[in-house]
Amino acid sequence: MSQDIKKKLDRVFNPRTVAVVGDKQMNNYMWLRNMTSFRGKAYSVQIDPNEIPGIEALGFDNYYSLLDIPEPIDYVIVAVPREVAPKIIADCIKKQVGGVTLFTAGFAETGTEDGIRLQKRITDMAKEAGLSLIGPNCMGIFNPKIGLRNGFNQYYGEGGPVGFVSQSGTHSIWFSLVGALHGIKISKSVSYGNAVVLDSTDYLEYLAQDEETKVIGMYIEGVKDGRRFFKLLREVTPKKPVLIWKGGQTEEGQRATASHTASLAESPVIWEALIKQCGAIKVDSLDEMVDVTKALLYLKPTTGNRVGLIAMTGGQSVVITDTFAKAGLRVPLLTEASYREFASFFNIIGSSYRNPLDISSNFGSVELLMRMVDILGRDENIDSVVLELSMAFLAIIRQRAEKFLDDLLDALTNFKDRSEKPFLTILIPGPEETAALETRARLVERGIACFPDFARGANALRKVIDYYCFHSTSGELSHGEKEL
Amino acid sequence: MSQDIKKKLDRVFNPRTVAVVGDKQMNNYMWLRNMTSFRGKAYSVQIDPNEIPGIEALGFDNYYSLLDIPEPIDYVIVAVPREVAPKIIADCIKKQVGGVTLFTAGFAETGTEDGIRLQKRITDMAKEAGLSLIGPNCMGIFNPKIGLRNGFNQYYGEGGPVGFVSQSGTHSIWFSLVGALHGIKISKSVSYGNAVVLDSTDYLEYLAQDEETKVIGMYIEGVKDGRRFFKLLREVTPKKPVLIWKGGQTEEGQRATASHTASLAESPVIWEALIKQCGAIKVDSLDEMVDVTKALLYLKPTTGNRVGLIAMTGGQSVVITDTFAKAGLRVPLLTEASYREFASFFNIIGSSYRNPLDISSNFGSVELLMRMVDILGRDENIDSVVLELSMAFLAIIRQRAEKFLDDLLDALTNFKDRSEKPFLTILIPGPEETAALETRARLVERGIACFPDFARGANALRKVIDYYCFHSTSGELSHGEKEL
Repeated sequence: MSQDIKKKLDRVFNPRTVAVVGDKQMNNYMWLRNMTSFRGKAYSVQIDPNEIPGIEALGFDNYYSLLDIPEPIDYVIVAVPREVAPKIIADCIKKQVGGVTLFTAGFAETGTEDGIRLQKRITDMAKEAGLSLIGPNCMGIFNPKIGLRNGFNQYYGEGGPVGFVSQSGTHSIWFSLVGALHGIKISKSVSYGNAVVLDSTDYLEYLAQDEETKVIGMYIEGVKDGRRFFKLLREVTPKKPVLIWKGGQTEEGQRATASHTASLAESPVIWEALIKQCGAIKVDSLDEMVDVTKALLYLKPTTGNRVGLIAMTGGQSVVITDTFAKAGLRVPLLTEASYREFASFFNIIGSSYRNPLDISSNFGSVELLMRMVDILGRDENIDSVVLELSMAFLAIIRQRAEKFLDDLLDALTNFKDRSEKPFLTILIPGPEETAALETRARLVERGIACFPDFARGANALRKVIDYYCFHSTSGELSHGEKEL
Repeated sequence: MSQDIKKKLDRVFNPRTVAVVGDKQMNNYMWLRNMTSFRGKAYSVQIDPNEIPGIEALGFDNYYSLLDIPEPIDYVIVAVPREVAPKIIADCIKKQVGGVTLFTAGFAETGTEDGIRLQKRITDMAKEAGLSLIGPNCMGIFNPKIGLRNGFNQYYGEGGPVGFVSQSGTHSIWFSLVGALHGIKISKSVSYGNAVVLDSTDYLEYLAQDEETKVIGMYIEGVKDGRRFFKLLREVTPKKPVLIWKGGQTEEGQRATASHTASLAESPVIWEALIKQCGAIKVDSLDEMVDVTKALLYLKPTTGNRVGLIAMTGGQSVVITDTFAKAGLRVPLLTEASYREFASFFNIIGSSYRNPLDISSNFGSVELLMRMVDILGRDENIDSVVLELSMAFLAIIRQRAEKFLDDLLDALTNFKDRSEKPFLTILIPGPEETAALETRARLVERGIACFPDFARGANALRKVIDYYCFHSTSGELSHGEKEL
C-alpha cells in the first residue's frame, strides 16, 4: 500500500478549509447548509449577484473567485453548470487546493457528445496537474467528526468505525442514515460518481490506512483498473473486513450503470469469484450491507456454525429453524447436561426445548428467560445464541411495562458482555411496527445486535462466520467446523 | 369436491352460538374477551367457583356443564387442562355441537406417553362420533364478519376475500394483523394444530367452496393424506390461487415441526415439485405470503414479464434494475415513440430514461411524474409499471406537503384504475421509517400495491405472473412471453 495516497487524501478527507462554488437558492443552498456543521472555515464562491444576499444571510463569506479567498483551501465542492466546470477546475489547480468534489453532472453518463467531451477535458486537466478530483456526478466526502456532510440530515460531532466508498450518492447517504439507526456510525465516506481521476481503489487504499476505520463497505458500479483493485483488496481483507456491493450484476443493470456513472459492463461471475478469492464479503443490497456490518461490529467472532435458537412460539420455532438451516447453519441437539437442566424446570405443555426452543408457555419472567439463554451460552454443542424477541415481547412493550424492558435489557447486555459466543436477537415487527422501532432503538443503545427477520439475521451470521473462517490463521477451527 | 364438508363446516365457521369451556383469570379470560365482538350468543362453561365472578363480570352467562346450556351450540372452544379434554369432548358429542376447537395443548407434540395416549383417545372419540374437531393445540377459527376471533387485537365487522389455513396460531394471527396493514382482509381463517381429525385438506376443500374467499393461503407442517391433498389442490388452483408455505423444509426444521404439531417429516423436494405441478404458489415466509397475496389482490393480471422501472435517483435505478432482472423479469428498451416523447421534455443532466428511468432532476411536480408514468403505461414493450417512491418522496412527506401527497395519490389511483397493466410502487423506508409507515397506510387506503423493497416487489410480481402463465387457458401469451 502506498503512503502517497494516504498523504494526498488526508488533506481532502480532513480539511480545515472548504470552499463551495456555485451554490444557489434553487437548490435551497444545500451545500452551504450542509457546511453549517463544519468545524473548520467554509467559504462561498458565487458570481451571481442575485444569489449573494441569500448566501451571506446563511453567514458565509462570499468571493467572486476561488483565487480571491485569502487562505489555502483544502477541499472544494463544485456545483456549477457543467460548461463552467473546466474554468473552476483551472482555478482549483492554480489555487493548489487539496482536492475537489465535482457535484456537477451531465458528463459521459449522458451518452452525449458534449458530455463526453467535457468529461475528457476536466479529466485531462486534473490528471496533468495531479489534482485530486472526486467525481464528477457525486456527493463527495462525509466526515462526521469534523462536521463535513453530504446532506443536512446526516449526523456530526462523533463518528464511528465504518468507512464507506460508494459510486452512488443515494447509497452513501442512505447507508449513513439507515446505519445510524442500527448502531453503525461512519468514520469517513465518499460518494465518487464517474471516477475519472480517483477511483474506488484509491479510496480503499486510503481507508485501509485510516486508523479510525475498522470495517470498509463499498458500492461499486465499475473499476478502472481491476488488477490493481483486486491485488489491493487481497491485502486489505485480512486486516479489515471489506464488504462489496456490486451494482450492475445483470445485463439490464449494466445499462443502468452506464447511464448513472458511465461505468462499463463487467462480468458479475468474475466479480463474485474475485470477491470470494480475496476474502472480501459480497453483499447485494443496502439492507445486507447494514446487516453484515452490524454483525461484524456487534457479534463476538466465531468460526463455528452451530446455533442455539430460542423462539417465542411454536410456529416461529419452525420458521427460525428452517431459515437458519437454509442459510447453511447447523441447529444441533444440545448436550445431555443441558437437557437435564431444562427437564428440571421447563413446562413442556405448549413448549419444547430440543433446539430450537419454543418458550411459549415458559415466558414468565426475565430470570426464567435468562436461565434458558444461559444454558445455551454454556452448551458445548452451540457456537452462537439467537433469541427471538417478537410476539409476546412486543405485546408487553406495548403495554408499557417499562420496568420489565429495562430489566430484560440489563440482563441481555450482561449476557452479551460476558458470553464468548455471538449473541443476536431477532425483533420481527409483525403488527407492532411502531413498538418494534422504539424497542430496536433500545437494543441498539445497548450494543445488542438486532435483526428485523430470521433470514436477515441468519444471513449476516453466515457471512461473518465465512469471513472469520477464511481469515482464520491459527489453523485451529472450532468444534462446529471440525465436525463438518 | 364434496358438498358434505361444506355443509358440515359451514356451521362451525359461521356459528350463531359459541361456548368457551375452561377460560380462566390466569389467561386474562382471553377466549371470552375475544368473544366480546361475537355477533351471536356466547356462553361460558366453568366449574371453578373462583373463576365464575370474573367471567360474569365480563357479561357472560356461565354454566357448570355444556349440557346445561339451554340451546344448541354451533362452536365450542376448549381451554381445559389436557386430562379433562376427553370429558369435554364427550359432552360435545352428547350435545351434538357443530364443531370444537381444542386450544388445549400437551398431546403427541410433547413426545410423552401421556400426551400420545390422550391424543389417541380424543381422536378415537371424535372420529367415532363424526365430531368436527379442530386441533388440538391450536387457536381455531377467525371469522371477522361475525366477530369470531382468535385474539383481542384482531379486527371484526368487515372481512375480506382471503382465506387462511394455518397449522400455527402465530402465523394465523400475524397474517391477519400484518395483512390488514397491507390491505389484506380475511374471509375466514383457521389455526388447526395437530390436525387429528380435520386436516388442511378439509379446510382447503371448505374454503374452495366458500363464496367470500377468492384467494387461499396455507401454512402447513404436514398433511395426513398427501394424495387427497394434492388431488384437491390441483382442482382448486385454476379457480382460486392457493399460496403454500411449508414449515419443516430442513431436517432441523422437521425436528421443530415434530415438537410443535407432532407432524411427520416430509420431503421438501417433493412438496416443491407438487406445489408447482398443481399450479399453486410456493412462498417461504409470512412476508412473502403477504406480498404475493397483495399482488394477487391489487395488481391487474398479466402473463407478460417486461417491466418499466422508475427510480428516484441514479443509485436506485441500478439496484431496482438488478433486482427485477435477477427475479427473472425483463427490463427492455422502450419504443421509439416513447423515446421521442421523453426527448421532448426530459432533462438528462443528472437523470436518464432508457429504462430504467432515473428521474432525480425531473421530479418537480405531480404532472411531470404522471407524464412519465403514462408513457410507460402506453409503451407496447412494457407489461408492468413499477414506481419507486422513496428518497425525494418521503422527504417531501416529512415536510408535510399534504396537498402534494393528496394530488399524487389521486393521480396514481387514477392511473392504476385506468391502466390495463399491473402498477406497483416501492416505498423503501430508508431512514424515514415513520413517514414510510404513514405513507404506506395512505397507499393501502387507495388500493395501490406498495412493497417495502425492490426484492419483495420483484418477487411478488414474478410469482403472480407465473401463476397467470400456468393457468392461462386462452393459449394466447402476451408479447413478453412470445419473445422468450
